[in-house]
Amino acid sequence: MIATAHRGVHARGAKTVDAAATRKSSAGSPRGPRRVANATASINPGDPSDHPIWRGVSLVLGHSSPAPMERPMLLVGMLDSPYVRRAAVTATLLDVPVEHRSVSVFRHMDEFRAINPLIKAPSLVTDAGTVISESLLIIQHFEDVAGRSLRPVESAARERDLALTGIAIVAADKAVAIEYERKRPEAQRYAPWQERIVTQLHTALDLLDAAAKEGALSAGPELLPCDIAAAIAWGFCRFVIPDVAPAERWPALAAQAAACEALEVFKTWPIDRE
Amino acid sequence: MIATAHRGVHARGAKTVDAAATRKSSAGSPRGPRRVANATASINPGDPSDHPIWRGVSLVLGHSSPAPMERPMLLVGMLDSPYVRRAAVTATLLDVPVEHRSVSVFRHMDEFRAINPLIKAPSLVTDAGTVISESLLIIQHFEDVAGRSLRPVESAARERDLALTGIAIVAADKAVAIEYERKRPEAQRYAPWQERIVTQLHTALDLLDAAAKEGALSAGPELLPCDIAAAIAWGFCRFVIPDVAPAERWPALAAQAAACEALEVFKTWPIDRE
Repeated sequence: MIATAHRGVHARGAKTVDAAATRKSSAGSPRGPRRVANATASINPGDPSDHPIWRGVSLVLGHSSPAPMERPMLLVGMLDSPYVRRAAVTATLLDVPVEHRSVSVFRHMDEFRAINPLIKAPSLVTDAGTVISESLLIIQHFEDVAGRSLRPVESAARERDLALTGIAIVAADKAVAIEYERKRPEAQRYAPWQERIVTQLHTALDLLDAAAKEGALSAGPELLPCDIAAAIAWGFCRFVIPDVAPAERWPALAAQAAACEALEVFKTWPIDRE
Repeated sequence: MIATAHRGVHARGAKTVDAAATRKSSAGSPRGPRRVANATASINPGDPSDHPIWRGVSLVLGHSSPAPMERPMLLVGMLDSPYVRRAAVTATLLDVPVEHRSVSVFRHMDEFRAINPLIKAPSLVTDAGTVISESLLIIQHFEDVAGRSLRPVESAARERDLALTGIAIVAADKAVAIEYERKRPEAQRYAPWQERIVTQLHTALDLLDAAAKEGALSAGPELLPCDIAAAIAWGFCRFVIPDVAPAERWPALAAQAAACEALEVFKTWPIDRE
């Protein structure tokens, strides 16, 4: 067990985020005195001869690379992933510039492993060289860099947005699970599991459709996280499992998603149909 | 497509969170004028005769129930889920009071469906009756209620915390996936998939162990989200798939997790070994 000397004040409210300052200070400041020494270790994240695991660790622990300021943030993953696409759309709406690299977690495993040994999409490589997995955490980093969030300010609206975003993420999760089940040889598919996840997907779509019908999901004028998540989950369903998600069954959701897809920010990040 | 009239300013920094005010105002305030009318619909989330889907929608859209102030928040799900446990530990550290109900998404499906038709753990029922799924979103709600976060303030530390939290969540995800694969009849298991997720789990544990060794993960004195996520992911691995996660292979992570498990907050929320 290692204890650290100083952890700072954990009050989000106390933090004034300045994008430029965030970028400048993020190269390798340590969590505690112990890590000052470690941060000086000359592990170079850019050296391809490093073992990928250790390279990953060096990235995660923020060992400084020669010129972090010269690297823009890099978002890695195919836009056929609803998680990659949601992160990308959010970055654009927050005016956070990212470079995007289409790398498949299946077809380009070695290339992906060299960036993130977890082979997880989306992966964000920050300008400090840190690798962040998990779309909701990546979006938190975009918020830190931007100094703002797409979440509404008023408490009831924030709560509702979280609830609807959660439903949309469940819809995406279940659609991915259905797709993965179909990727197995037929003999290795498991009918009770398929039935369970299809029911969960349909329930999520029922809830989103009802929300769209009531106006709790829209296509703006200002997009909330729930609007983005719902439209992208729906687009993903229609792309990979259209037979399980017929458009006529959820017309309000389909209309909300179509209105989002017509927006410039969605057209900037189209589903990768390669 | 339905547009709403006013969405508020989307600046997180502008929001002053007051826990009491949040609770009082969260019963049913609408997203726009259109929803003022909807919010007056007399759907009672407590009425068991409601169709579960519509009940779910009414919960999500914040239709007011008779006495929201008299209900504390309810966290639903078994503590053998690393996501439920992470949410519970975080609530306690943020001084957000929650009632907990141990309901299994497999063994008590009907009971779970009555609370959240998505049958997703954890589910949070807020004091306004809104149901939130997804542990990271539930934690965002706890932060809103508490008016603070466990995330560090300094930007490089925030970034590192996000990176490590993401790795820990991937570890938990892959451990869950391995467990689910084992729940299938043997003939329906798919060896290439099992191999892939075991490799991903081991990579995540390698990264967490290296981080623990360097002191980037600890057991306090103040727990960061990454500390909690790593310790809980490790505890979950040791509980459900100990053969795939031998303690001697990742000694620094095992020591960090053991130190966390010895803390009062972890003992308050022990793994449900039922």
